Amino acid sequence: MKLVRYGAIGQERPGIVDASGTLRDLSAHVSDIAGEALLPEALAKIRAIDPASLPAVEGNPRIGACVGKVGKFVCVGLNYTDHAEEAGMPIPDEPVLFMKPTSCIVGPYDNVEIPRTSVKTDWEVELGIVIGKTAKYVSVEDAYDHVAGYCVVNDVSERAFQIERGGQWDKGKGCDTFGPMGPWLVTTDEITDPHVLDMWLEVDGKRYQTGSTRTMIFNVPTIVSYISQFMSLQPGDVISTGTPPGVGLGQKPPVYLKAGQTMRLAISGLGEQSQTTVPAA
Amino acid sequence: MKLVRYGAIGQERPGIVDASGTLRDLSAHVSDIAGEALLPEALAKIRAIDPASLPAVEGNPRIGACVGKVGKFVCVGLNYTDHAEEAGMPIPDEPVLFMKPTSCIVGPYDNVEIPRTSVKTDWEVELGIVIGKTAKYVSVEDAYDHVAGYCVVNDVSERAFQIERGGQWDKGKGCDTFGPMGPWLVTTDEITDPHVLDMWLEVDGKRYQTGSTRTMIFNVPTIVSYISQFMSLQPGDVISTGTPPGVGLGQKPPVYLKAGQTMRLAISGLGEQSQTTVPAA
Repeated sequence: MKLVRYGAIGQERPGIVDASGTLRDLSAHVSDIAGEALLPEALAKIRAIDPASLPAVEGNPRIGACVGKVGKFVCVGLNYTDHAEEAGMPIPDEPVLFMKPTSCIVGPYDNVEIPRTSVKTDWEVELGIVIGKTAKYVSVEDAYDHVAGYCVVNDVSERAFQIERGGQWDKGKGCDTFGPMGPWLVTTDEITDPHVLDMWLEVDGKRYQTGSTRTMIFNVPTIVSYISQFMSLQPGDVISTGTPPGVGLGQKPPVYLKAGQTMRLAISGLGEQSQTTVPAA
Repeated sequence: MKLVRYGAIGQERPGIVDASGTLRDLSAHVSDIAGEALLPEALAKIRAIDPASLPAVEGNPRIGACVGKVGKFVCVGLNYTDHAEEAGMPIPDEPVLFMKPTSCIVGPYDNVEIPRTSVKTDWEVELGIVIGKTAKYVSVEDAYDHVAGYCVVNDVSERAFQIERGGQWDKGKGCDTFGPMGPWLVTTDEITDPHVLDMWLEVDGKRYQTGSTRTMIFNVPTIVSYISQFMSLQPGDVISTGTPPGVGLGQKPPVYLKAGQTMRLAISGLGEQSQTTVPAA
């Protein structure tokens, strides 16, 4: 299933994209694509609905982030060998974790703000894992049972804030609008193997990132299990799993975003995002 | 005002502690001590209520974290000169930021879990700032306008997870139960100067931390303004502002928590916490 949230910011309604690509309203069945609506039994109920019975959504509404009320947004750094190399960082022995505040989450076509004083705003196409069942001390073998589905994440990053301003990466990862998510939460029945997905990102039509989840260092069940040793994960939490090579920081010389540009990015099966950069409000 | 949340986990009700120390039920007036109930105008409405008109709460209910539905939990590291020294870290030129996931938040008297495989679980008494109005690119001069009040936070930390497991501190800061918060959210009318507060922490009756917010490197308005340059803050967000000397890591030799111990900690005017350590569930 391709689950969607559509409507104005803060007023998104739940929807589903049917096999023909039509967006249909799910609000008679769930209040939001969020939290306990992502539990396996709740998703099974949605799956049992005949999409043709749902009203088609008229017009061309804004698409919101594909998960609402995200409890936490955990990220894995340096999870593609080639990206670690381009960033000049060692290949990690175990996953590097950091966090993005949920206040940075926006829809897949919303504007991305270039923060005031920023000179190094950068892009990162990433596979997002959406948690569907509480996970605490989960084994690698059981980890998939806790995954509701996947989505595209743009882990927008300000490299000076992240690396040059003292201490921890979080400072450059959580600016408002730095977490476009969606367009769809694609459930695990459609993505039976998340490690064979092509991914790419362009800025103003120039291809910068071309990769595949095949080259992830730590795979999906390993990541879910690993994080669950350090903090419990709840339904509606999102994990972003790292980016392949081709970020701005890795260009020679580095290339960073300025206002008025357009990022397009996609992962096969998970849809495409597009954001225009604007000065921070 | 001393605002409180009381009742079973996940079912907390809003309350207020009156001048005589009686807990009174606020649920006829607000649904929770959270989010928009912390806006200046919302707090003014609560302040206008005669506490004697509110029903006294019977019995001895559990006290929950003093803020509900926390959107994000941002922390400042190494914000007391002496603590930076004991941690063997340089005095920062600007605030060091990291994040705790909101899933780690518990009440002030709830148990604290020693994570599986943990050998370096540590304590940190800290002044918490509770945001009362959205803050984005706020000046130091205006920062206090965005503060609803203050609370005690125990920034429980696993030092091996934090420092020895690759990368970022977040990994050792967010284990379940690592964020006791409360007992009270004390509004700014009662704490007119947050930089003159004594603070202490004991383990099994032995005093380890004795400090004062007088020795903070970056003060409250500086911290709020600073964070707001990197991410917007919303009502109900909590900032923990760093710990004075005396953490377990700083003892010679280091001292860490094991199951079956009791932490007691307090900040003058903000109340006292007490937690028993237990093995992770």
